[in-house]
Amino acid sequence: MMQSTKRATRALRFNARAFSTSAHFAAPSSLSINADRLWETLHETCKWGAAHPYGDNPRDTGMARLTLNDDDARVRRWFADEVQKLGCSLSVDQMGNMFARQSGRLESTAPMIAMGSHLDTQPRGGVLRTMKENNFKTNFDVGIVNWTNEEGARFPKSMCSSGVWAGAVPIQKAWDLCDIHDSNVTLRSELERHGFLGDIECSSDPETGYPLGAHFELHIEQGPILPETGRSIGIVQGAQGYRWLTFTVHGKDAHTGTTPFSARQDPLLAASKMIAASNAIAKQHGALASTGIIKVPSNASTNTVATNVTFTLDIRHPQDSVVHTVQEVCLREFGAIASEDGKGVSFDWTLDTDSPAVKFDQDCVASIKAAADCLVGPEKSMLMTSGAGHDTVYTSKHCPSAMIFVPCRDGVSHHPTEYCSPEDCALGTQALLEAVVHYDESKANKGSGV
Amino acid sequence: MMQSTKRATRALRFNARAFSTSAHFAAPSSLSINADRLWETLHETCKWGAAHPYGDNPRDTGMARLTLNDDDARVRRWFADEVQKLGCSLSVDQMGNMFARQSGRLESTAPMIAMGSHLDTQPRGGVLRTMKENNFKTNFDVGIVNWTNEEGARFPKSMCSSGVWAGAVPIQKAWDLCDIHDSNVTLRSELERHGFLGDIECSSDPETGYPLGAHFELHIEQGPILPETGRSIGIVQGAQGYRWLTFTVHGKDAHTGTTPFSARQDPLLAASKMIAASNAIAKQHGALASTGIIKVPSNASTNTVATNVTFTLDIRHPQDSVVHTVQEVCLREFGAIASEDGKGVSFDWTLDTDSPAVKFDQDCVASIKAAADCLVGPEKSMLMTSGAGHDTVYTSKHCPSAMIFVPCRDGVSHHPTEYCSPEDCALGTQALLEAVVHYDESKANKGSGV
Repeated sequence: MMQSTKRATRALRFNARAFSTSAHFAAPSSLSINADRLWETLHETCKWGAAHPYGDNPRDTGMARLTLNDDDARVRRWFADEVQKLGCSLSVDQMGNMFARQSGRLESTAPMIAMGSHLDTQPRGGVLRTMKENNFKTNFDVGIVNWTNEEGARFPKSMCSSGVWAGAVPIQKAWDLCDIHDSNVTLRSELERHGFLGDIECSSDPETGYPLGAHFELHIEQGPILPETGRSIGIVQGAQGYRWLTFTVHGKDAHTGTTPFSARQDPLLAASKMIAASNAIAKQHGALASTGIIKVPSNASTNTVATNVTFTLDIRHPQDSVVHTVQEVCLREFGAIASEDGKGVSFDWTLDTDSPAVKFDQDCVASIKAAADCLVGPEKSMLMTSGAGHDTVYTSKHCPSAMIFVPCRDGVSHHPTEYCSPEDCALGTQALLEAVVHYDESKANKGSGV
Repeated sequence: MMQSTKRATRALRFNARAFSTSAHFAAPSSLSINADRLWETLHETCKWGAAHPYGDNPRDTGMARLTLNDDDARVRRWFADEVQKLGCSLSVDQMGNMFARQSGRLESTAPMIAMGSHLDTQPRGGVLRTMKENNFKTNFDVGIVNWTNEEGARFPKSMCSSGVWAGAVPIQKAWDLCDIHDSNVTLRSELERHGFLGDIECSSDPETGYPLGAHFELHIEQGPILPETGRSIGIVQGAQGYRWLTFTVHGKDAHTGTTPFSARQDPLLAASKMIAASNAIAKQHGALASTGIIKVPSNASTNTVATNVTFTLDIRHPQDSVVHTVQEVCLREFGAIASEDGKGVSFDWTLDTDSPAVKFDQDCVASIKAAADCLVGPEKSMLMTSGAGHDTVYTSKHCPSAMIFVPCRDGVSHHPTEYCSPEDCALGTQALLEAVVHYDESKANKGSGV
């Protein structure tokens, strides 16, 4: 904990120097996140849903707080209490999204500058508390959003409620999502049971919904690039495009002992070569291509060539054109592979998801870059593209948005051993605070400049 | 049908010429299988179990007569009636194996020369009927064995009862086999229900069991070699060796969008390369290597690198040393593949089945070759090695044994469209008859030569 405080101190000193040599850098907020309290708060809220212990320390656990289960309802009520203690107003929309709003000194009616997060697994915060205890007033209203069902682990649609808010997911479809273990329970029935079905329309519409002035999100990287390059802040300027395809390779079942290679139509051999080829093709293009699922029919046996094989392909790159090219080259190469062995196989495919690349707002990115440069300097931060989907990908369609990444141990996420150090939690929260303050300040300056 | 008869006539003429020019050839039996009746009999018995129609003709069906179900009991009773009408004695052992025995003219007590088959899917015969109606007497006793549960489709152990007979499968284990759809039903309980639990020990022991003097088996090739090379009789001189291995490749689950290739431990990519490599290695050695099953954990998803992958490997070659070499080269190559991508994967493996190559009896093979040369000539027959397991593989351990293959359409077996033409059924049965007569004659000559 002391280390975290020290680093913040060092960072402020560093920033002071940086500020003196470059006009690009905004002055730091002079606010400092209380790392000890932040860490305590994180673990306090983790009592609702701690699971999957992996070490000796009682805090060495994973978290399994599923959307709108009893633990999630408890942490939502805790969140409501805490933000109200800070003097925030709280709004809840029809998807149970919670909007905590702290007034700015301008008493502007402009939509608030939001820090988005999701409590269904990890709580975050500390910024509003720090502002409050320092009596710090932003120009515009700022606040926190708790987006419902980001993970999609209980109700299988990730970024579900930011998707509704952005108009990308129909609300009825979201409400009708069933608990994966109990089809009698829907997302809507759980919203009602816990009293989180709000009146406000879940939309960015200024008339009927809850529009946002900006959206900043702090997240662990979920990858190894920051730890491996020794950086502590990722300035996320967009999200890579991705396409999910499912391939079915059709062969013919045959006895493995009596059928020479020349007479076979072996879909599993072909699929194996296709998977290996997609990896090589993605490497050549600096893209990613991954197969997570492969299936043979349930009656497959050791001594029978399979009838058919299904596998998924997930292609990603920050540029849509590269995603497209990798897909095209894969299809061409798969066609060649299909005729390579024995009597050949056939295949068909479906495009299940097509998520174009997203560019985040330049001003938001600039505010995060300013914060990162202040706190750790350019050599300890880097511009990045998010590999995964996040609520911010949806908010970016309706308000200026960007994200901050902090390192997580070994790049591991979605696993009980997912871990972000107290220092990086504090540093990330400090960066979030600085970015919001910088953005608020810039916006006020622009406004006054008109 | 006419064609089949014509062919038999041609064959006899051909044989006469062959005989006149080579002392190696035995005289033909002068018996001729009644192809029409054989075909009718095959379809008569198929009324018990016809299933999976694939064409317009009522006979365009598959067969699904599972071991010891009611249809199988009916065809067993039909078989018992028919062989008793022919004057055969019938014995049933503790595995329900049925031994039909026709006395030879020498009234020898030597174990009978058997034609083995299994009625659990296909009936066969015609040989004994043909001998009977021609008043033809072999020297030694000859007969038919109906081996119980050859297919292993209902009670999951193929060649189960010839295995017990050969001492390779403990009888209790065979009796305890459960119906794959109803664990309350065992092979023994079905033997009892239908009255086919005999008193004779299921063994080749001359004191307590039912020893055989020889074992000939007629079977479809289950592969494409005969049809593709335009041959009509395969003289099977042995069965290839095979090993079944199961590999588990251990990786680490990771987000496909956020984890660069360099940081991955992707077991599915590695398994794909291993499967492709095993195919290439087998080709280099003129062997077979096949993967029929691949599995990822049930929680696998499109955007997650799998935790681990399991796949089977089936390696075959007529020489055990080549099977061994292919396995060794695969293991070495798999080791290299495991460290090829990202942070590498680990793998372990088990040897589930090790079935050494089998060489059939030279005299039995010679008798089949003599029959084939007579019937179709050397250019229409060929020496072969069986790729699949058969009852004869077990009998060969305790009595002189060999097999005859006839072509099946497109090499397809274990499928409703499995089909052997009336001509090939008749020709195969004729070859079986000639081989048994030749073997019986040779044995008598040897005996008289002593």
